[in-house]
Amino acid sequence: MEFKLLANDPGSKARAGELHTAHGVVPTPIFMPVGTLGGVKAVHMRELREDVKASIILGNTYHLYLRPGTEVIEHAGGLHKFNGWSGPILTDSGGFQVHSLNEIRKITEEGVKFQSHIDGSRHLFTPENVVDIQRSIGADIIMAFDECTPWPCELKYATDSMHRTHRWLDRCLHRFNATDPKYGHEQALFPIVQGSTFPELRKASAEYVAAKHTHGNAIGGLSVGEPEEEMYAMAGLCCDILPKDRPRYLMGVGTPWNLLENMAVGIDMFDCVMPTRNGRNGMLFTREGVVQIKNKVWADDHSPLDPNGTSFVDSAYSKAFVRHLFVTNEILGLQIASLHNLAFYVSLMTEARQHILEGTFSSWKARMLPKLKNRITG
Amino acid sequence: MEFKLLANDPGSKARAGELHTAHGVVPTPIFMPVGTLGGVKAVHMRELREDVKASIILGNTYHLYLRPGTEVIEHAGGLHKFNGWSGPILTDSGGFQVHSLNEIRKITEEGVKFQSHIDGSRHLFTPENVVDIQRSIGADIIMAFDECTPWPCELKYATDSMHRTHRWLDRCLHRFNATDPKYGHEQALFPIVQGSTFPELRKASAEYVAAKHTHGNAIGGLSVGEPEEEMYAMAGLCCDILPKDRPRYLMGVGTPWNLLENMAVGIDMFDCVMPTRNGRNGMLFTREGVVQIKNKVWADDHSPLDPNGTSFVDSAYSKAFVRHLFVTNEILGLQIASLHNLAFYVSLMTEARQHILEGTFSSWKARMLPKLKNRITG
Repeated sequence: MEFKLLANDPGSKARAGELHTAHGVVPTPIFMPVGTLGGVKAVHMRELREDVKASIILGNTYHLYLRPGTEVIEHAGGLHKFNGWSGPILTDSGGFQVHSLNEIRKITEEGVKFQSHIDGSRHLFTPENVVDIQRSIGADIIMAFDECTPWPCELKYATDSMHRTHRWLDRCLHRFNATDPKYGHEQALFPIVQGSTFPELRKASAEYVAAKHTHGNAIGGLSVGEPEEEMYAMAGLCCDILPKDRPRYLMGVGTPWNLLENMAVGIDMFDCVMPTRNGRNGMLFTREGVVQIKNKVWADDHSPLDPNGTSFVDSAYSKAFVRHLFVTNEILGLQIASLHNLAFYVSLMTEARQHILEGTFSSWKARMLPKLKNRITG
Repeated sequence: MEFKLLANDPGSKARAGELHTAHGVVPTPIFMPVGTLGGVKAVHMRELREDVKASIILGNTYHLYLRPGTEVIEHAGGLHKFNGWSGPILTDSGGFQVHSLNEIRKITEEGVKFQSHIDGSRHLFTPENVVDIQRSIGADIIMAFDECTPWPCELKYATDSMHRTHRWLDRCLHRFNATDPKYGHEQALFPIVQGSTFPELRKASAEYVAAKHTHGNAIGGLSVGEPEEEMYAMAGLCCDILPKDRPRYLMGVGTPWNLLENMAVGIDMFDCVMPTRNGRNGMLFTREGVVQIKNKVWADDHSPLDPNGTSFVDSAYSKAFVRHLFVTNEILGLQIASLHNLAFYVSLMTEARQHILEGTFSSWKARMLPKLKNRITG
């Protein structure tokens, strides 16, 4: 796996690059649609490729481990064969999900014991078996097993948790280096910086992670409730320490403006369920602002869904028709909103990248931010 | 509106033709996907056109009248503009739906008083206002307002109901002839033959309808619980009376084998929610038989969804992946099954039509029927 850094924005720390994987080249900055269970909710793989123009998608280790299970995925020949997505895939480690199971999980030095949210069955995730599962899934990028601390978080807990995450990282890397890919293509492991919103912890964690010289690095534990300014500050602090010649992935972030602000401090990769989840609730992100398509104001508005949109749904359907589909609980409404939002996110990254390459990112971002945050009410 | 009869099958009463409408040519026999609320459930308009290869779709007067309402549709410039489907549209009259409201509707000579299934509000459908609503919707083919009798049905009730349906037809035609299309394109009104499963009534009703010399004719009140052989017998009896030079539409039918059997007695047009509704329950129709994709037997079957399928989903996804999507309640599973089934229905019509044109329909049908009815269990 190779990362080519192509440009640094003169007015910020934004970068443009290319991540070369066994399943294709990923231009950065990039947004990765989330395919929790292997498929991106309400969007065909063909649409992801041709309309959203996604170049990499996510899968979720916790969910895929429970259903369909690693055995079925192995029989298919890996997740690429199972879900029919032939481009690059990144899998999260399941850390975030199992820690979210609050009442039905227990963290020890060994790993995390948890109960399935589906049938209550008992399972154990360890740094070692989480690497093994991701080997079976066949992801191009494997994430280390970490603890995503809640926010706010006591300094003592955040410190102890960070050190455990570091020890788990060493065990992940040990297992990773002792095992081979199962399907003949290269896999890379990205460690995850933790440390809550404590600058000293973030600094220590980023230094610990940087010293591992992995193909790429991630920042976790942000966008969990802290103020946006703190998120940007923590991400920037980590970026200043993480190697310049490797991609930096900020996990689970965020709104369109969050993406631009985090790019400006040096982030290259993003994922978030927001475009699909909020889309299914009728929230549309556009370059002129946020639209709640269920609102009555759109009931008789027969203009195109998004005149500035890049995907076919933006001109094929009107605001009034999509509002009607939401009001009548038609699945097609969820499909349209999900596809629109993902295409918007990816096209915003493409546009940002072009501005970085041309050295005009900062002024463009300054113009875009107030528009993106605008609430369009008719 | 013009119907060109191109071929009669030598071994049956099957016909191949072309129905010319203001929004395009419909090859017959044809299957019309149902877009109850304006959109076909879980299928994009682009997919309907390019993948399903639908040449005409249905809208539902009852549902569209309640939501979004005729005013919004008029402001859009008709349903074609509202839903973005630029091909031909047929609207049912709402008769079937309001009669299905059993407890919350009352039939009188004037029409049907009913309560909305959404908010309980009170409404009245009459032959006149149902024509007006369909003028506002702008359907290429408008259906007469009728009573769809339940099955079984007393002779007395079926007789009285049929005569009322005939009187309503006269009122529909009177209103239709006294009004103009609203959007500049031609609309045609199809009357509906009723009479339950009483041959004398069906004969009387078909003769009544035939005498109106409309652009096309429909047969209603079948596929409501009667044995399949009775359905075919009644459809055949009506076809023998209805004009040869006009298309014959059998409403709300049915399974793939129902379609072939009814073609053989002279039916040209079909619609049914079965491919989409059953698809959403995991039932896939294929040329080798019926598959219940949720069954455990498919959990580890990584072969293409349907190796004989004509749509992209058939090769893009495996049985195991689609089964996984259904088991995990992913919307994408509903999308895949709906698109597959509709594409299969339409392609089966295309193949049947080719055999009618070549004079080989009957032997082909005899070979196909046992395969279509087969239950594939792995």
